[in-house]
Amino acid sequence: MTQILVVHGPNLNLLGSREPELYGSSSLADTDRALVQLAGELGAEIDCFQSNHEGEILDRIHESLHVDGFLVNPGGLGHSSVCLRDALLGVNRPFVEVHCTNIHAREEFRHRTLLSDVAAGVVSGFGWRSYLLGLRGLVDLIRAA
Amino acid sequence: MTQILVVHGPNLNLLGSREPELYGSSSLADTDRALVQLAGELGAEIDCFQSNHEGEILDRIHESLHVDGFLVNPGGLGHSSVCLRDALLGVNRPFVEVHCTNIHAREEFRHRTLLSDVAAGVVSGFGWRSYLLGLRGLVDLIRAA
Amino acid sequence: MTQILVVHGPNLNLLGSREPELYGSSSLADTDRALVQLAGELGAEIDCFQSNHEGEILDRIHESLHVDGFLVNPGGLGHSSVCLRDALLGVNRPFVEVHCTNIHAREEFRHRTLLSDVAAGVVSGFGWRSYLLGLRGLVDLIRAA
Amino acid sequence: MTQILVVHGPNLNLLGSREPELYGSSSLADTDRALVQLAGELGAEIDCFQSNHEGEILDRIHESLHVDGFLVNPGGLGHSSVCLRDALLGVNRPFVEVHCTNIHAREEFRHRTLLSDVAAGVVSGFGWRSYLLGLRGLVDLIRAA
Amino acid sequence: MTQILVVHGPNLNLLGSREPELYGSSSLADTDRALVQLAGELGAEIDCFQSNHEGEILDRIHESLHVDGFLVNPGGLGHSSVCLRDALLGVNRPFVEVHCTNIHAREEFRHRTLLSDVAAGVVSGFGWRSYLLGLRGLVDLIRAA
Amino acid sequence: MTQILVVHGPNLNLLGSREPELYGSSSLADTDRALVQLAGELGAEIDCFQSNHEGEILDRIHESLHVDGFLVNPGGLGHSSVCLRDALLGVNRPFVEVHCTNIHAREEFRHRTLLSDVAAGVVSGFGWRSYLLGLRGLVDLIRAA
Amino acid sequence: MTQILVVHGPNLNLLGSREPELYGSSSLADTDRALVQLAGELGAEIDCFQSNHEGEILDRIHESLHVDGFLVNPGGLGHSSVCLRDALLGVNRPFVEVHCTNIHAREEFRHRTLLSDVAAGVVSGFGWRSYLLGLRGLVDLIRAA
Amino acid sequence: MTQILVVHGPNLNLLGSREPELYGSSSLADTDRALVQLAGELGAEIDCFQSNHEGEILDRIHESLHVDGFLVNPGGLGHSSVCLRDALLGVNRPFVEVHCTNIHAREEFRHRTLLSDVAAGVVSGFGWRSYLLGLRGLVDLIRAA
Amino acid sequence: MTQILVVHGPNLNLLGSREPELYGSSSLADTDRALVQLAGELGAEIDCFQSNHEGEILDRIHESLHVDGFLVNPGGLGHSSVCLRDALLGVNRPFVEVHCTNIHAREEFRHRTLLSDVAAGVVSGFGWRSYLLGLRGLVDLIRAA
Amino acid sequence: MTQILVVHGPNLNLLGSREPELYGSSSLADTDRALVQLAGELGAEIDCFQSNHEGEILDRIHESLHVDGFLVNPGGLGHSSVCLRDALLGVNRPFVEVHCTNIHAREEFRHRTLLSDVAAGVVSGFGWRSYLLGLRGLVDLIRAA
Amino acid sequence: MTQILVVHGPNLNLLGSREPELYGSSSLADTDRALVQLAGELGAEIDCFQSNHEGEILDRIHESLHVDGFLVNPGGLGHSSVCLRDALLGVNRPFVEVHCTNIHAREEFRHRTLLSDVAAGVVSGFGWRSYLLGLRGLVDLIRAA
Amino acid sequence: MTQILVVHGPNLNLLGSREPELYGSSSLADTDRALVQLAGELGAEIDCFQSNHEGEILDRIHESLHVDGFLVNPGGLGHSSVCLRDALLGVNRPFVEVHCTNIHAREEFRHRTLLSDVAAGVVSGFGWRSYLLGLRGLVDLIRAA
Repeated sequence: MTQILVVHGPNLNLLGSREPELYGSSSLADTDRALVQLAGELGAEIDCFQSNHEGEILDRIHESLHVDGFLVNPGGLGHSSVCLRDALLGVNRPFVEVHCTNIHAREEFRHRTLLSDVAAGVVSGFGWRSYLLGLRGLVDLIRAA
Repeated sequence: MTQILVVHGPNLNLLGSREPELYGSSSLADTDRALVQLAGELGAEIDCFQSNHEGEILDRIHESLHVDGFLVNPGGLGHSSVCLRDALLGVNRPFVEVHCTNIHAREEFRHRTLLSDVAAGVVSGFGWRSYLLGLRGLVDLIRAA
Repeated sequence: MTQILVVHGPNLNLLGSREPELYGSSSLADTDRALVQLAGELGAEIDCFQSNHEGEILDRIHESLHVDGFLVNPGGLGHSSVCLRDALLGVNRPFVEVHCTNIHAREEFRHRTLLSDVAAGVVSGFGWRSYLLGLRGLVDLIRAA
Repeated sequence: MTQILVVHGPNLNLLGSREPELYGSSSLADTDRALVQLAGELGAEIDCFQSNHEGEILDRIHESLHVDGFLVNPGGLGHSSVCLRDALLGVNRPFVEVHCTNIHAREEFRHRTLLSDVAAGVVSGFGWRSYLLGLRGLVDLIRAA
Repeated sequence: MTQILVVHGPNLNLLGSREPELYGSSSLADTDRALVQLAGELGAEIDCFQSNHEGEILDRIHESLHVDGFLVNPGGLGHSSVCLRDALLGVNRPFVEVHCTNIHAREEFRHRTLLSDVAAGVVSGFGWRSYLLGLRGLVDLIRAA
Repeated sequence: MTQILVVHGPNLNLLGSREPELYGSSSLADTDRALVQLAGELGAEIDCFQSNHEGEILDRIHESLHVDGFLVNPGGLGHSSVCLRDALLGVNRPFVEVHCTNIHAREEFRHRTLLSDVAAGVVSGFGWRSYLLGLRGLVDLIRAA
Repeated sequence: MTQILVVHGPNLNLLGSREPELYGSSSLADTDRALVQLAGELGAEIDCFQSNHEGEILDRIHESLHVDGFLVNPGGLGHSSVCLRDALLGVNRPFVEVHCTNIHAREEFRHRTLLSDVAAGVVSGFGWRSYLLGLRGLVDLIRAA
Repeated sequence: MTQILVVHGPNLNLLGSREPELYGSSSLADTDRALVQLAGELGAEIDCFQSNHEGEILDRIHESLHVDGFLVNPGGLGHSSVCLRDALLGVNRPFVEVHCTNIHAREEFRHRTLLSDVAAGVVSGFGWRSYLLGLRGLVDLIRAA
Repeated sequence: MTQILVVHGPNLNLLGSREPELYGSSSLADTDRALVQLAGELGAEIDCFQSNHEGEILDRIHESLHVDGFLVNPGGLGHSSVCLRDALLGVNRPFVEVHCTNIHAREEFRHRTLLSDVAAGVVSGFGWRSYLLGLRGLVDLIRAA
Repeated sequence: MTQILVVHGPNLNLLGSREPELYGSSSLADTDRALVQLAGELGAEIDCFQSNHEGEILDRIHESLHVDGFLVNPGGLGHSSVCLRDALLGVNRPFVEVHCTNIHAREEFRHRTLLSDVAAGVVSGFGWRSYLLGLRGLVDLIRAA
Repeated sequence: MTQILVVHGPNLNLLGSREPELYGSSSLADTDRALVQLAGELGAEIDCFQSNHEGEILDRIHESLHVDGFLVNPGGLGHSSVCLRDALLGVNRPFVEVHCTNIHAREEFRHRTLLSDVAAGVVSGFGWRSYLLGLRGLVDLIRAA
Repeated sequence: MTQILVVHGPNLNLLGSREPELYGSSSLADTDRALVQLAGELGAEIDCFQSNHEGEILDRIHESLHVDGFLVNPGGLGHSSVCLRDALLGVNRPFVEVHCTNIHAREEFRHRTLLSDVAAGVVSGFGWRSYLLGLRGLVDLIRAA
């Protein structure tokens, strides 16, 4: 069965309360429930993980050699963390990058990420539904590989 | 019923034969069939349009005041055409931008488009399936609005 | 009698309906009527032409060797079309560049055009009246030459 | 009655003698006479002011709370004076920026000004007639407001 | 009573011993004592927190929904951490950014921070007294809001 | 027999009359005659095509799967059209890029083209003879392949 | 007794009326009164000076060899005047730079000043209270020197 | 006896399995064993430390006031962490920066690090042997000081 | 007899007391005396003028149509004043630009001036003797013209 | 009879052995033989010269006042040697620049040369045949002059 | 037996006398002696070569097809000579780049070299000992190949 | 007696014949004669040296430890040769940089040199007389030291 680790980066625990005009009002728990349900429909198994600590995220990725791919919302780390890029490359699994907001419509420093050019695919701007689209795309890519 | 115009920009008629290692081997007709089928499942009505002529694309967008949104793969126009951006803004409908390839993993001049910051959402890197994800996202956004 | 070709670039057919908070509520037909009337007062003859097709605009400019000057609102082409610049240089007639909006107050990529440094004069920011000011200036420049 | 202050920046007292191949041969007095005459035709009242001292220009703008708008040829200050921008914003009146020469066809550092994005409109390249066009545009903008 | 969280970023535990020619010889404990005393005089209550771990700082900010504002010396995180910016925006409280050294007089990469444009105010260059000035300013801003 | 399509981009129909101090006085018809004659000498068959419409050029390239290579003078499209690059890459044939003028001696924006790095060879600066040199080079490259 | 010259740059005479949403509603006279009072509390003597003329500000700084430091709000001169920097360096006294607004949250050209790297300290964003904080900081720095 | 702390940054625990075509097939344990052996030969004492947590690395550096120098492979932190730079400067000990890969032959963002200009020396490109060369160099520098 | 106006820009009245390690210990009066003496030897007549007011400098240049050339030390205005450039161009006389310090060895923003490309010659780095060298060069250039 | 000096810059003596996948397998001697033969056909006389010493190349160009033009493959000097540009300008003869490889398809620093804007024409990408095309073009240009 | 050519670029003959605070006091002869001794210990044979003439260095590299690798201190050529890069690539042998000083701690233009991305390894900052470390690394790389 | 070495860089042997509209019609021999005469008047001894070979210039500078200073016209090397800068720094003598033409009025790449920030003084734009002014300045600087 296809195994996926969903990685929620720093500050995503605030989903639903944080800048709701940008991020919407669904909480992280709501999002995870929707992801688990969709995974079930798609015949995949997912694990969801959130941390505000870059180091914990790196550790968790290193320990996930059993997964077939990662669904990653890097949060702010996407714009600054070479380490996150290196961890994902280091375990040699495809990953899809998702953003709730349209990063191209925000501050200049958010327009590029350090992950995009090595991601299998990128989805941004659909609110919490970006995760759902990303999960569909990731599962398809893994099965087509 | 939700009405969507799918716009395929220049050179997308070559889909399936053009640089298949980048763009995959599904033809444009295959893609349109899949889009029509998914639209049906989602309860939406779509029209698919391809042209190599920027002017024809602008004209078609102007004539589409009856649609609820656009699904746009701008092809090379995404990187150079201010007119396409202006046409989409001019008719005041939400649109989703899709790319078959991961534009962030290609030449520097493909990393940014003139549409992204005014798009409702962006999907790239999933091959012809980018269209399917984009369609799902667009329909959801229109209905959530 | 002084002969002028007025060139309206892509999307200007939407004038009046397109982003009215930016472009105002006068239609292109209104603007053309006002231009014809002012031309009459100034003793000039004008022809008005709009197209969303760069190629048609180039063709029309090439065929206009009988005119004394061009009044050009390039729309989005001003920021991307070297061909339009080359066409205007190629027929060797003075032209005035006009913009309804103040392009310096909009997105960074609109601040410069590929026409301005070879234009005889530039007018921007006065809404549809930019055309009237530009026509006055162009006729004066042609007669002073 | 519409009240306008015309501000001529540094070195414009040289108009007519200064680099005549660039600036033409009409003197500042000629220009002011033509402006007064046009203002009369338009039913507006204008006052003309020139100084080579940035400070005097700022003082004069501060003292002009009775005017409805400014017609400003900033001269070299347009490219360097944040203070002039701040003064015009500080008194909260619309202003039109004019340049006799086509600043886009000159040295790189003249292509942008610190006023353009906050101006109501910009006119450049028509010699001393830029002032006349600018005055027409300014009066129309004030009355349309 | 006004509640303030003082956040000392990475390496600030070294205050007093670290590069004393730049940072002065007061220790972090000295600084905290002075802050507590000034807070008392101002009728505010403060809590002081230092960590070398970005994740711990984010967690602490998230848990501080009871405070009225933050006094933040981001240390090196100011120049690299989008996550810190997002955390402060995420809890929607005003914050003042302080630096002991004059960051404009140091290496180029220290001249800008990722916090300054969303800070309520910024104080830099006064050594450990920057904190005191920042606290005064923050308390005033909170009370004036 | 080696088959070549010669593509003349926008404004090249003006050759001979357009800016003759830059482009020389031979007309496009003269150039095509010389190309046909040289092709005969080299044992190649050529077809010559000019259009001011990017879309027509793309269509024509797509329809030319029978040719062995392209000789392309992109005109202004060379500096702005990602679509032209994509069309040439899409049909997977070698092409040679030619310019009548020395593009390095002209405006900054002409110094680079979007075709050069994927062209088989580039010739610029020899007036209409650039085409002849380019044709020789292209035929040799095709035969050496 | 510690002697301080407070320098208010161009347009600061408008304080209270100028863009009040940015600068607040306290007038310059209010600010000066508050500064004099605080100076008294701190045991310092201050003189307050405003001018819209760069030259007058330079002259005044040159004549102030008796002061122990300067409190400077350079206004727009901070972004353009090398002369102001040179004058402050020329008299060899410490100075503190203050801004009412948060310059990092405004136009790009306001983010850096020509004074900051040679200032003893910088305070921005606290409205007219920036002056009070700056005065406290300056007096402390002078006494600690 | 010369005391050295070897700091392995994030992801270096993957050495041997991570992108072996780039990083080689020696594990971190192999590298540490070789370092300990060389240290013995050179009469130095080393301690080896790896963490994926920036904060733990900072803490460890702060606690290492007894060492004579650091041998640091910053991993991805070298390109983003001002805090690591500050920690190393804060404890005022010489350090040598090493990279297994040739960072100049990789992505643009890896060409510069935030440590190099304050390092005593830099070694890159020799695989795990970069550590050995760096250790030799560091011990020599410490003894020559 | 050759007539020269020597223009000393802002802050040069401080010569001798201002940053003597950079500017030397000769006063402006000393320098003027040496210039007058050298002018006498060269058979030229000079007038020396210093002001801290840009406007006064512009006025003085405008009134100097009787001189054959200008010897200009622009001080800080050289890096910011387009108006000074325009004034010198406006009166159409050759000028030599001098700097006491070597501007290339100072802050980045001093490396270029707005005068150099239109100056007849430039001398920098010889302290007050830069004036003497500049005067010799200017007189020679005027006589050779 | 038309006299041409062919200049082969540094490292071109390695032609045929150096990076053959880039430069092909014809040696410099082969190339020179082909050039001499073509020159004979064209009725021109050529001399071929190679050196790895910039100074020798400059000397040789200076001594070649009898030639009608230069055919120059600058090798690496094209990207760094202002002296080579100055030598070619100094002797005031037309020259054609050739490159065996397509410099636009290689490292960024090879995309521009210091010769191109002053060359009569440029040919790149046709392997050793670039020389033959360049010679044809140069002879034609000389005769057309 | 492993054969190495040591290349000392321009000005390295001054080692020991040149800027000793930067380069140390060991002469080039001292360095060569130490290199020869270490080579003996490592079972390699080295030849040492210094020249101030780029052309001589290129010639020498071309003649060194018998060596297994190069140890190169390019001196100033590292920052400007594409020819040196091309020569080293042209003979297709691994090379190690060394610098006595830490080039990252010096002038901006020294931070990057034209060799680093094609070097096998880079060592900088250890004074003359950089050569010794580089030799060790080079011999290991050659033997591991 | 003050000893000076005059260094004429590449292409300066062409002085008088090379681009005379830029460089004037005095030959290098004329210039050297004038320099010798002026040196005599100033009580200094000069030696003049010209070479087109960078290496010869470096060698000559290295051999000139007996001189008190250098008068250097670097020609094109000024814009590209780090080695020349290093040679001049390496022998630790003051030098004055001179240019016949005004380098600021020429191509962008000539506006900065690699020598200026370490030169004692710079003179440009006075034709061959730049050398005379430079010699005066150099002798004065040496004697004032």
